[in-house]
Amino acid sequence: METRNNVFIGTSLDGYIADSQGGLDWLDIIPNPEKIDMGYYAFTAQIDALVMGRKSFETVCSFDIDWPYEKPVFVLSNTLNGLPASFQDKAFLIKGPLTEALRHIHQEGFRRLYIDGGVTIQNFLQEDLIDEMIITTIPVLLGGGVPLFGSLPKIQQFELVESKVYLKDIVQRHYRRKSM
Amino acid sequence: METRNNVFIGTSLDGYIADSQGGLDWLDIIPNPEKIDMGYYAFTAQIDALVMGRKSFETVCSFDIDWPYEKPVFVLSNTLNGLPASFQDKAFLIKGPLTEALRHIHQEGFRRLYIDGGVTIQNFLQEDLIDEMIITTIPVLLGGGVPLFGSLPKIQQFELVESKVYLKDIVQRHYRRKSM
Repeated sequence: METRNNVFIGTSLDGYIADSQGGLDWLDIIPNPEKIDMGYYAFTAQIDALVMGRKSFETVCSFDIDWPYEKPVFVLSNTLNGLPASFQDKAFLIKGPLTEALRHIHQEGFRRLYIDGGVTIQNFLQEDLIDEMIITTIPVLLGGGVPLFGSLPKIQQFELVESKVYLKDIVQRHYRRKSM
Repeated sequence: METRNNVFIGTSLDGYIADSQGGLDWLDIIPNPEKIDMGYYAFTAQIDALVMGRKSFETVCSFDIDWPYEKPVFVLSNTLNGLPASFQDKAFLIKGPLTEALRHIHQEGFRRLYIDGGVTIQNFLQEDLIDEMIITTIPVLLGGGVPLFGSLPKIQQFELVESKVYLKDIVQRHYRRKSM
């Protein structure tokens, strides 16, 4: 079965995924009284597991909420020595180079992956390992923060799968890596 | 009559307006056999003049084409001492702070302005002087280059006027500054 590495992320109009204090309040600047999920449920329904870095893992842990993921979460980190016992059966530490980590995850039977977190997404992109990206743009200019994209060894072309508008102001673009 | 400062620009998916060598080839990566203009003519039909910086002016001059603008072009530069005589009646040098330059342009009767060029757009945004932006996204990741957006003193919110898809792969989003 084919493997897929997919991104589903919200950005500001100037391409940041968090503001310069790491804040995410601006993600909710457009009123969403009916709490529509903008395709998040449908997206997560078709993935097998999440892959994120240490920072994203720690950020999620810092939220005052229950563990939000039903699928296994693989945490890529070469500095952590283990995850707290409370995450047993929920989150799994993976060390080593990206391609080895991926091979391990695939061998465990998880093939359709939700790649999350700025550094992790950039690391995957640097090795041209992202297949699809669903980018939801909040119409604000933050003027600084944590950028979604970083440097790349070469240009990568995508094709547009779909573009949708949510809540009048939010454009969500779904891209697929163009096979060259 | 109201004044308007509008942007109409193409960017890569990672927010660059030129690649790291200043190149623009990627703007044409999506085949456009019928040379559709993606709204450029309609946009320029409703502006009175262009405003750009020295770099953009020199870039346009370096193209091996006839002068491409029918409307007057105001070139903002505090380093140039004058423009070549061949640009008489076409391009006009303006010095001084942005708000003074704008006042001068408005006094000349040009009120709906096409603000172009990375540095100039960033300078206008820094003073919260951009009213509308039409951003046409080419689905490529360049991994570096000349960014459209830069730092800002504070967050700016926009509302979506319209989102269109051209040539199957190109999303064009039209934003208007939200009055707070």
